[in-house]
Amino acid sequence: MTGELVGIGVGPGDPELLTLKAVRRLGEMEVIASIASDRAAPVAERIVAPHLPAGARRLAFQAPMHAEAAVRRAFYDEVADRIGEELAAGRKVGFPCLGDPLFYGSFGPVMARLAPRFPCSVVPGVTALQAASAALRLLLARGDDGLLVLPATLPDTELAARLRTTECAAVLKVGRHLPRMRRLLAGLEPAFEAWIASRVGTAEEHLAPLEAFRDTVAPYMSLLLLRRRTAPPR
Amino acid sequence: MTGELVGIGVGPGDPELLTLKAVRRLGEMEVIASIASDRAAPVAERIVAPHLPAGARRLAFQAPMHAEAAVRRAFYDEVADRIGEELAAGRKVGFPCLGDPLFYGSFGPVMARLAPRFPCSVVPGVTALQAASAALRLLLARGDDGLLVLPATLPDTELAARLRTTECAAVLKVGRHLPRMRRLLAGLEPAFEAWIASRVGTAEEHLAPLEAFRDTVAPYMSLLLLRRRTAPPR
Repeated sequence: MTGELVGIGVGPGDPELLTLKAVRRLGEMEVIASIASDRAAPVAERIVAPHLPAGARRLAFQAPMHAEAAVRRAFYDEVADRIGEELAAGRKVGFPCLGDPLFYGSFGPVMARLAPRFPCSVVPGVTALQAASAALRLLLARGDDGLLVLPATLPDTELAARLRTTECAAVLKVGRHLPRMRRLLAGLEPAFEAWIASRVGTAEEHLAPLEAFRDTVAPYMSLLLLRRRTAPPR
Repeated sequence: MTGELVGIGVGPGDPELLTLKAVRRLGEMEVIASIASDRAAPVAERIVAPHLPAGARRLAFQAPMHAEAAVRRAFYDEVADRIGEELAAGRKVGFPCLGDPLFYGSFGPVMARLAPRFPCSVVPGVTALQAASAALRLLLARGDDGLLVLPATLPDTELAARLRTTECAAVLKVGRHLPRMRRLLAGLEPAFEAWIASRVGTAEEHLAPLEAFRDTVAPYMSLLLLRRRTAPPR
């Protein structure tokens, strides 16, 4: 009897964007672990709840907010120790993740600590990037295009230098960085067309060209999709 | 009675990585259109077949191989005309795509031609990128990392210049470009760790560090995942 850690991508927010594999694996889990202070946690919780076995136990961890690296590492050590006890007792522990478990998010540090000692598997999921481009019906990349994914938390000079090298881009973690992203994009040569997609696949979904979006803070779960204006027609 | 064009992401190759929404929409389709000469078509076909209604008709198009842009445009005009007839007759036409419909692939030019005239929707799918990182249990991107997606078809100078700007990358369409990619990566500073993932989620799945992979041509449906060696520990 061996335990197993399963990172489970639950998709971008629409409960119908769960995969058949995620549904099957959720139904096998004896323990469901999550970082309760993560803003994605309640969304993921609503998505997985209908698929869990009746007896599944919850393990919820409170992450320190805006903590230094050392504090964050100590937190993840503790999370891994606690999940490790369940795995050592032979239980299957699911770690549901909004989007995909290995595309940003908090499963990485948990897996890094536990995979050397216990069986670990990952169920990939549909990302917010894919969901946003589907909702906007906007071709993300084609042919020889490069696609760049960048967090808005990078400094202006980094963002500008990287964006100048690409045909298409997605900017994640926009939130309070929205006014800065607007200024940066307005001054960028070559220019990009930009769209904002918020809370895609939920009742609060909002999609707009960036120039038509007037708020100065993007809602949680927002991203920008960018496409070079000068791209040749194909 | 209005027709509808539905681009349906069927995931990276594992039939269990279909989403619940893809299963539901497939069951509503009256016509299934595909580019039969596309090497992804038989894989997508096997995945969708069990979910189609008994009476669903197939529309398969033979794309010209290695054709010039004008010939390719004429081909897509013809595809759009033929699908447009079905839509004008009020039918629901599904266009299944391996991975995600708007992340490379052939749905883009079909949608561009038909979406101005007919209702069109897109069901996003799990990409090969997500499936490869899950199979390798390799964190694709974390924290402030940028992630760059590049087709191996770009010239060496472009690939090298862009890779120097990123922490993580995925290289698609590797195929016969594998020896060139090896040389390029061997000479790149800063250096990347590299893995190859082929036919992920199928019976022929193969995963390896790039240095342990001896073939000179990568199988169809291969990609490289790259991570900067010098990334600071987090």
